[in-house]
Formats: sequence, structure tokens, C-alpha cells
Amino acid sequence: MRVLVTGAAGFIGSNLVDRLLHDGHQVTGYDNFSTGMYRFLESARAAATFRLIEGDLLDRDKLDEAMREVDVVFHMAANADVRFGLEHPRRDLEQNTIATFNVLEAMRVNQVKTIAFASTGSVYGEATVIPTPETAPFPVQTSLYGASKLAGEGLIAAYAEGFAIRGYIFRFVSILGERYTHGHVVDFMHKLATDPATLHILGNGLQRKSYLYVGDCIDAMLTAVTTTNAKINIFNLGTDEYCEVKDSVGWITRRLGLDPRLTYSGGERGWVGDTPFIFLDTQRIRSLGWRPRLSIREAVERTVDWLKSHPWAFAQRSVD
Amino acid sequence: MRVLVTGAAGFIGSNLVDRLLHDGHQVTGYDNFSTGMYRFLESARAAATFRLIEGDLLDRDKLDEAMREVDVVFHMAANADVRFGLEHPRRDLEQNTIATFNVLEAMRVNQVKTIAFASTGSVYGEATVIPTPETAPFPVQTSLYGASKLAGEGLIAAYAEGFAIRGYIFRFVSILGERYTHGHVVDFMHKLATDPATLHILGNGLQRKSYLYVGDCIDAMLTAVTTTNAKINIFNLGTDEYCEVKDSVGWITRRLGLDPRLTYSGGERGWVGDTPFIFLDTQRIRSLGWRPRLSIREAVERTVDWLKSHPWAFAQRSVD
Repeated sequence: MRVLVTGAAGFIGSNLVDRLLHDGHQVTGYDNFSTGMYRFLESARAAATFRLIEGDLLDRDKLDEAMREVDVVFHMAANADVRFGLEHPRRDLEQNTIATFNVLEAMRVNQVKTIAFASTGSVYGEATVIPTPETAPFPVQTSLYGASKLAGEGLIAAYAEGFAIRGYIFRFVSILGERYTHGHVVDFMHKLATDPATLHILGNGLQRKSYLYVGDCIDAMLTAVTTTNAKINIFNLGTDEYCEVKDSVGWITRRLGLDPRLTYSGGERGWVGDTPFIFLDTQRIRSLGWRPRLSIREAVERTVDWLKSHPWAFAQRSVD
Repeated sequence: MRVLVTGAAGFIGSNLVDRLLHDGHQVTGYDNFSTGMYRFLESARAAATFRLIEGDLLDRDKLDEAMREVDVVFHMAANADVRFGLEHPRRDLEQNTIATFNVLEAMRVNQVKTIAFASTGSVYGEATVIPTPETAPFPVQTSLYGASKLAGEGLIAAYAEGFAIRGYIFRFVSILGERYTHGHVVDFMHKLATDPATLHILGNGLQRKSYLYVGDCIDAMLTAVTTTNAKINIFNLGTDEYCEVKDSVGWITRRLGLDPRLTYSGGERGWVGDTPFIFLDTQRIRSLGWRPRLSIREAVERTVDWLKSHPWAFAQRSVD
């Protein structure tokens, strides 16, 4: 396959690039390097079957050019900053919704017929059914990030109907693993690097969240793309378990050999738009034979280990 | 109330303006007159409590200015062309999704706290539950129009959560009545004006659709806005019945005193993205005491009568 990966220099994107190259595919990476890192593409750039294009998804000319002679697009690029969406409302609209529209238009112009899209469990808002299936009741959005991804999903489905493309929509829980640079594990580790004796936690620590290891996430996407072929294929991706934020804190601090005093900001949400309980029903993707190999605890620990051995990744952490 | 109506010179918008003025409110009408008509605002413009601003929703400066000293926004402006969305994919994104984002941003800047939004039953795609309730299973979009309105709904909900605004989202069936210029009634009447002896119908004529009279639609919106006040209030608006396209054809032709030979393009959809069965569950809005006054047949006949007596409205019809 000739594959275009948007957000190729990001956390999930670069892992996907490496996997696709390893599997023998021809890969074009597209990234604007606003948060992506050249270091994540070091091994990919050594491959003759890899081509890197530095470009923005809002630059239609560059994108149209990158889309030539492509069979499948993995559209991983996004503004993934859920928590600070309210500080820059236009960012999600541009980088998620309009960017996805541009990808679809470039596909249409170039007759590219398949797209796989990194959506999010955030599109369920505060789900009324948990574990949440893909057919959950019509959700009410609670974040600009979720709203922008929902808009992307809608565009893909409408293009699938109208322009005979095939769409794979993956609603992720939070992803952990190598090259993770953004989220609670890196935030906690950064705080502990400054003060190993105390750790302040947003919310009451009882927020229940589900996580998935990046390798399992990529396995799931490739399983779906190679085994199903409806016009629109929608899959939740997650593990069959959840943990509380304070469980995760325990795993992180033990892995670091620390025993900090914990303080809490209180309340059942860590911030405006935080979802107190995320747990997705993954029966649909499991029915294709996929299973995650790592538990949440193993994924957290592997993430801690990777961050410890790659301290430069902290430069990418989100600001608290 | 000081009310801003976007799309004030459109079909539903201008009827709403007249009603709000009649009820004693101070109204600012905002329209770019791309499809709106000055004639629809003739009586409004004679009112001292009406102010008209000719502007585009993509013009943020003008919109910000219009939004000053406003209590409630009725955001009716849209590209309402469902059927030809595929011919100009960017139009729905700009005029529906980005325009709605701009309205919300202008509200935020001006501390306007309430928005009522003209959404559509099209957001349900091809619904799996009929009559379709507001909590129907997570829909898959089938048109760029539906996708763009869904994106608008998501933005409103995210702003409600993040910026403490109140949102009313109305999912309309197709609306009929005075100042209707766009849709099957005007299309059929235009064809019959050219050739009264034959009428060609897209699809097999068995598509089942629900319609609502514009006056009933406005009553429903005002009922909701004045009696409920959750953060997000979502209501289907429609009648408690549906008809087949050929029922509607019969009512139209009889009203015109014609008996054309009917031909059909065939297939259960009139065009790509057409929904073969639209019928919304309206229990939620009915629970507030609202009832439609006109049946579908009465609404169709009233529309025919209005179009007959306002032949200039044909200039606005969509091209077949």
C-alpha cells in the first residue's frame, strides 16, 4: 500500500509510520512540526520507502501534492489538547475540523478512496451508557476538542456517502506508550521532578479513565482496515478495564521509587469539560479478533520508563 | 428581549422577525442577502424596533458589532441546500459550521448568553429508530448539510459547557408555509408551470417525509426558549405524521387544478444522500404544551397558495 500519514511526527503517527514501514508499505509522512518531533522519525527517515513532507493541513496546495499516488490516508494530525481548548477556541476548529475537510478534499481531487481517522471517545461527552458502545445515544458535546472530532467524523461519513470513499473512524481512549509526550503521566512526572515530596492532583482523584497502549492501538487500526470494508466503519479502541486517576498515580510514583504526599483540587472533574468516567465498549473491534496485549498498568509503567529514558520529551509536555 | 436573528431575510428567519416584533421585542436582523429577500422584511423595516444589518457571518468585525447589547441570538442563517451539497463541498463548512463558530465567538466577546439554533432532522442520517427521538443511537451522517449542522450543534454544546451559555437546538423536519422558496413544492410547481401535463419525480415517490408549518415551527421555538432553561435544550420539531412524496404531489396538483401524468426516476432515494424516511418523535417539545396547528396537507396547500400569489418567489427556487 501507498500510505499517507498526517501527523506523522506525532506520538501515534510516528509509531504508525514505523509499523507501516516495517510491514513493507510505502509511506508518506505529512507534518507541520507544530508539536511533532523530528526525532520520532529518525528510523523512518533512514528507510528508502519513506518520504517526509513538511506541511500544514491548512495549506491545500501542499496537501494536494502530498496526496498524489496514495491508496490510503491515516489522518492522525490534530490539536490533541483537550484541556486547554477554551483558551484558544479557534484552534480545534482549524486544526481538527477544517484540516479534516482539507484532507477529504485533497483525497477527492486525487481519487484517494480510503481514510482512517483518529477520533476520540470524547465525542461521547458525558456518556449515559457505560461501557459506551459505538451506537450510544446521540451524545451532547462537552469540549471543543470532542466537538471538532465529531465534526470530522461527520464530514468523513458524508464524503463516504457522497463521493464513494471508505472511512474508518477510531474512537480512542487516551493512548500511552513510547513517544507519549502529552497527558497526565508526563504532567505528574514533571511535577515530581520539581518536587518529589508532594503531588497535586486535579479533581478528587476518583475520575475513572481507560487507556490503551499505542502498539495495541495500531494493531487495532490495521486489523480493522484489513478485515472490514463497509462504507463507514466505526470502532471504539480501548482496553476492557478502567482505573481511577489515583491508581495511575500510585503506579507512576512506585515506578519512580517515590512516595509523595498527595493533595487534591477536589471535585469530580479535573477541569471544565473533563469527563469523570470514560470506559468504552470494545466488543466491535474484538469481534475482528483483536485483543490488547498490555493492561492499563503495564501501559502506564512502560510510558514512565520511556519518559525516564527520554528526558528531552518533557520539552513537549503540556503546561499545567 | 433584544434579539439578534441571523438569516433574518430568509424563509424562517423573516417569519420569526415578524413574530418577535409583533410580540414587542427589539430585533436586529442580520443577513448577507445571498438567498434572503428584502421583500420578506418589508413590514419589519417599517417597525421602529427593527434594525437591519447587511453582513456576512464570515465577517467577524461586522458580526461582533451586530452582537452588542443583544440578549438572545436566533441563529437561522445557513446554506439550506441539502441536495446539491456535493457540488460545492466547502459551502456547508463555511456557511454552516464556521459561521456558527463565528456567531458563538461574537457572543462570547459580547457576553451574550443565549442561542437558539436551527438544526435539522438530517443530523440523524438514515435513522435506525423511527419515529426518531432526540436520544436516537449515535447517527452516521449521509449529507454534507447534516454533517455541517451536527458540527454546529457540537460547537454550541461545547460553548455551553465551557463558557456558560445556554443553547437551544431545534432539529427541524422540512418547513413549509409563507415565504417558502426552496424545496419540493416549489420545484414541482416550477416544472408544472413549464409543462402542466407531465411531472417527473426523483426517486420512486414512496419516500416518506414529515413537514411542519412555519408558524408552528416558530411557536415551538418560542415555547422552548420561554419555558425551559437547561444548559443545552434539544428538541425535534415536526408534526405527528408523515406522507409519501406522491401524497404531496397529489395535494399540490389538485390545489393547482392539474392532473399531470407522473413519471419516476426510480430508486428509494431521490438523490445521493436523500433520506427515504424522515419522521421525528416530537414528544419532548409536546411535553411543554406545544401542538402544531396545521397538518402536513394543510401546510402543503398553504404553501401552494402562497407561491401562486407570489410568483416572484420562484426566482429563488433551487435549480433542478
